[in-house]
Amino acid sequence: MTDASTTLGYHWIVDLHGCPSDLLDDHELIRSRLKETTDRFGLTLLNIVSNQFEPQGVTAIGLLAESHMSIHTWPEHGYAAIDIFTCGSEARLKSACRFIADALQAQSCSVLRLRRGLLNHDGTSRMASEPISLDND
Amino acid sequence: MTDASTTLGYHWIVDLHGCPSDLLDDHELIRSRLKETTDRFGLTLLNIVSNQFEPQGVTAIGLLAESHMSIHTWPEHGYAAIDIFTCGSEARLKSACRFIADALQAQSCSVLRLRRGLLNHDGTSRMASEPISLDND
Repeated sequence: MTDASTTLGYHWIVDLHGCPSDLLDDHELIRSRLKETTDRFGLTLLNIVSNQFEPQGVTAIGLLAESHMSIHTWPEHGYAAIDIFTCGSEARLKSACRFIADALQAQSCSVLRLRRGLLNHDGTSRMASEPISLDND
Repeated sequence: MTDASTTLGYHWIVDLHGCPSDLLDDHELIRSRLKETTDRFGLTLLNIVSNQFEPQGVTAIGLLAESHMSIHTWPEHGYAAIDIFTCGSEARLKSACRFIADALQAQSCSVLRLRRGLLNHDGTSRMASEPISLDND
């Protein structure tokens, strides 16, 4: 398939493992890390919603001028599921992913980069994805 | 790689093309469709945030007991970017995707299913993705 259209958004999917459970269950900390990530890397946070789950786990979701960023945590597994979706530039997303991985003291990290909004010549849509390594530029 | 861990969440990424621009630029309609989708398909909506962009475009994001659902629209392209992330069952996600695609009168649709939270035996994380067709069961 040829690349018949412009990418309308970049959606980076981030899995963090090996994070300390106390960090992942700290509601205010998770909210703060989301805000810091958007502030530092040029994303405009318009609104944030969050929830502390029982017996554990936190969700924080930022509505961005560029789309959204979410953090969901499973403290019992040392796991955080993050995504950053921007209709703007993706130039700083790798740095943003590194920042949030470091902030949550992740021992390992997987990142999948999705290009959203692609359209084929025949009008059908398609999805493009590729793994991203945070270890090198 | 062997499947060394349980999937902690299912994240379905949905690209809709060929939607009428007036639907995609209707803030209340987009919010309503998000609510209807979660209500009909067993997802628990705890909070919703949304924004009408200028000159056009809407974002609606639902914080779910199960994780999140988002809708971002580009009326000028007839395009909507949707994701549904659940830590629960994915049994009804295909029906949910069909419902929202129909509700927004999409002419074409791409769905990518991500399994989140997978961990290898050696402690490294990984991401698994596969395209999903809504045309058959």
